[in-house]
Amino acid sequence: MTTYLDHAATTPMLDAVVAEMSAAMRRTGNASSLHGSGRRARRAVEEARERIAAALGARPSEVVFTGGGTEGDNLALKGLYWARRTEDPERTRVLVSAAEHHAVLDAAEWLGEHEGAEVELLPVDELGRVHPEVLAEAIARDPGRVALASVMWANNEVGTVNPVRELAEVAHAAGVPFHTDAVQAVGILPVDFAASGADALVFTGHKLGGPYGVGALLLGRSVEVTPLLHGGGQERDVRSGTLDTPGVVGLATAVEITVADAQRRTEQLTALRDDLIARVLATVPDARLNGDPGTGEIDGGPSRLPGNAHLSFPGCEGDSLLMLLDAQGIECSTGSACTAGVAQPSHVLIAMGAGESIARGSLRFSLGHTSTQADVDAVVAVIGQVVERARRAGTAAGVL
Amino acid sequence: MTTYLDHAATTPMLDAVVAEMSAAMRRTGNASSLHGSGRRARRAVEEARERIAAALGARPSEVVFTGGGTEGDNLALKGLYWARRTEDPERTRVLVSAAEHHAVLDAAEWLGEHEGAEVELLPVDELGRVHPEVLAEAIARDPGRVALASVMWANNEVGTVNPVRELAEVAHAAGVPFHTDAVQAVGILPVDFAASGADALVFTGHKLGGPYGVGALLLGRSVEVTPLLHGGGQERDVRSGTLDTPGVVGLATAVEITVADAQRRTEQLTALRDDLIARVLATVPDARLNGDPGTGEIDGGPSRLPGNAHLSFPGCEGDSLLMLLDAQGIECSTGSACTAGVAQPSHVLIAMGAGESIARGSLRFSLGHTSTQADVDAVVAVIGQVVERARRAGTAAGVL
Repeated sequence: MTTYLDHAATTPMLDAVVAEMSAAMRRTGNASSLHGSGRRARRAVEEARERIAAALGARPSEVVFTGGGTEGDNLALKGLYWARRTEDPERTRVLVSAAEHHAVLDAAEWLGEHEGAEVELLPVDELGRVHPEVLAEAIARDPGRVALASVMWANNEVGTVNPVRELAEVAHAAGVPFHTDAVQAVGILPVDFAASGADALVFTGHKLGGPYGVGALLLGRSVEVTPLLHGGGQERDVRSGTLDTPGVVGLATAVEITVADAQRRTEQLTALRDDLIARVLATVPDARLNGDPGTGEIDGGPSRLPGNAHLSFPGCEGDSLLMLLDAQGIECSTGSACTAGVAQPSHVLIAMGAGESIARGSLRFSLGHTSTQADVDAVVAVIGQVVERARRAGTAAGVL
Repeated sequence: MTTYLDHAATTPMLDAVVAEMSAAMRRTGNASSLHGSGRRARRAVEEARERIAAALGARPSEVVFTGGGTEGDNLALKGLYWARRTEDPERTRVLVSAAEHHAVLDAAEWLGEHEGAEVELLPVDELGRVHPEVLAEAIARDPGRVALASVMWANNEVGTVNPVRELAEVAHAAGVPFHTDAVQAVGILPVDFAASGADALVFTGHKLGGPYGVGALLLGRSVEVTPLLHGGGQERDVRSGTLDTPGVVGLATAVEITVADAQRRTEQLTALRDDLIARVLATVPDARLNGDPGTGEIDGGPSRLPGNAHLSFPGCEGDSLLMLLDAQGIECSTGSACTAGVAQPSHVLIAMGAGESIARGSLRFSLGHTSTQADVDAVVAVIGQVVERARRAGTAAGVL
C-alpha cells in the first residue's frame, strides 16, 4: 500500500474525469471541422470553456486552451514580452519573482539571452513571498520600460501564497501587464480571474485531478500576446493546434468539481497537514517548517497551500530522505518534480535566504484529494528512523 | 448513420488505445518524480519511446514528445532557425514548400516578420509535388545562408507524396538541415526516419488512431534546436513540460498498430478510394481529381495517400457541397480542417496552378481505418444531386 504525498507533482485523476474522457475518446470529430461530428466536438469544447470560465470568474472568451502549465507560462511570458516590445521597443524589462517555477524563470532567462530582455528577479521574503512594495519599487526604477511582471499565485515548493490582487494593482497602476502562474492554486485556493486583476493566469489539468497535457491560459480580452504556436489560428489566433476535445472536457470537469469542493477540501487538508507538521516536528525536534505558517488569509483564502508541508531536516540529504521514505512506501519529493534528480539546492529556498544545508535537506509532503489520516500516520511512524539513517549516511559520506 | 470521410482531419481512436489510456489514467505518477510511482510512469514513457522508435526507424533518444503536430512543426521550424542562426548570423534563408500545412507556413511567416528570416516558398508542380531540382536550385542561389528546408511528406489536402529521401539528400549535400511534416504519413506510408535522411520529422496522435494533444518530433541526435518551451528540462531539454504518460502510451500503441497494419490498409483504402473516384467522375463528368493519380511509387510507398480523394466540381462552392453532403449524413471537408470556415481558396490548389473556381469548388474525402464500401456507396448515391443543387445555388447567387 503506497502512501502518496506528492499531489503537487501530480494528483490522481478524478473518477468522473476518467469516465468522461474515456467516453469522449470514443467520439470522433475535429472541433474545427464544419460537419456534424465537428460541430458536436466544437459544442463540447465551447461548453467546457463556459464551465471553466464560470468556475474561475473569467469570460468564456478569456479561456485559451493550451498543452499544460509549461506551455501556458511560456506563452504568457514570451507572448506578452513580444507583444509589448512590438508596441514599444524600449519595453524590455521583465520582472519575475525569484521563487517562480522554472517554466517562468527559464522562459524569462531565454528572453534575456535571446531577445534582449533585461530580467530582474523580484526578491522574496524569508517565507517566500513577494511584497507589493517590492514590485512597486522595481517598476518605479523605470516604469516605461517594463514589458511585464510575473508572480506566481502560490509557490509549488513551499506553498506560500502571494497577494496577487495587490500585486496586480501595483502593476496596473504603472500600466504594466501582470501574469500569474496559478498552477498550484486553481481548484484549491479561491481563484477568481476578474477579481484578481491579473491579465494572464495559467493552470493545468493534472494538478487538479484532470488530464495531463491540457491546461489553459486565462487572458484578458484586451491583452495582446504574440503566439508561440502558429498554424490553423485556433483559440483567438493565440494558440494554434487541433483542440484536444476529450482533454478539454476532462479539464472542465476537473475544474468544476475541485472548485466546488475547494472549501471543504481546504479544511480537511489543513487539518491533516497541520497534524503532519506538528507530529513530525515533535518527532524530529530540529526539523523546521519552511514557508508561510498558514495561519493568515490572503485574497479570501489561506496564506499557505492547505496541502503543503515543506520541512527541512538539518544534516540530511533530501534525496536520501526521499529514497528511504520511498522504501517504506511513502512517496514525496524534495521540491519540484520537474527538476527532480538535479543535484542543486532549490532556488526557492536559496531565494528565501536558507543556508545550503537547509536547502539540501528538505522534503515536500503535498496532500490532495485522496489523502487520509492514515497517510499522515504512516509518515509519522517512520520519519524518526528515516531521518536518523539519513543523518548517519550523510555523516559517513562526509557530505554535510 | 454517419458516413465519416474526414479521417485526414481526425480519425477515430483505436479501441486498444482508448482501453489502454483509460487504464493509464487511473495510475498516478509524474514521470519526473523519483519515487516508485514516478519511476513506474517513467518506465511507461521510456517503453513508449522505444516502441515508437522501433516502428519508425528512429533511435529512442531521437523521439521528443510534444503536444501535437502544430507544436512539433513550430518547434522544428523556429528551433532549427534559431539554432542555425545562432551558429552563424548569416543563415536567415528559410525554404518551405508552397503547399505546406499552415503550422509550417505560418511559423515560417512569423520568422520572416519577427526574426529576420527570408522565407522562400518552393514552388510545387501541378500535382502539388516539390521536385528535388527545385530545392537544389533554391539552395544553390546562396547555400551558405540557408537556415533550413522544410517539405511535407504527404500533402494534407490533395494527398500528393513528396520524394522525401531525395529532398533530404539535396539539402544534406549543401549542409542544410531538412525537416518534414509527416502528420499525414506516419501510420499510413512506410516512414523510416533513418532511411529518410530527415533531420526532423513531425507526427501527431489523433491522425493515426491515437490521442489528441500528443505527438512527437523525431530529431536526429546531433541536430540542435532551440526550445520553444522552457522549464523543467524534460525531453533532452528540447521540450519542457510534464510528460503526458497516458497520452504517450496511447500514442505508442497507435503507432505500433497502424504501422504494422499499414500495408494491408493501404491496399484496402486504395481500392475503396479508386472506386470512389471512378464512380464520382462517372456521375459528375466534369469533376476532376486533384493531386497525384496515385499510380506511382515513392520511397517504397504509393505516390498519393491511399485514403485521399480530392475532387473539384466546377461551378460549385466547396462549402455548399460540404453542407449538402452533411445534410445527407456524409462528412468530409473542403481542405484542411484547421482553416475550415475561412473564406479563402486553398493555398495548396493555388500553388498547384488551379484557377480560383477550381480551388473554391473542391472537396476532400479522406478514408481511414473504419471506412467501408458502404461509405463509398453512400457518396456515390447522392453526389450527383448534391452537385446539381450546389450549382443551382451558385448560379442563383451569381457567385460563380
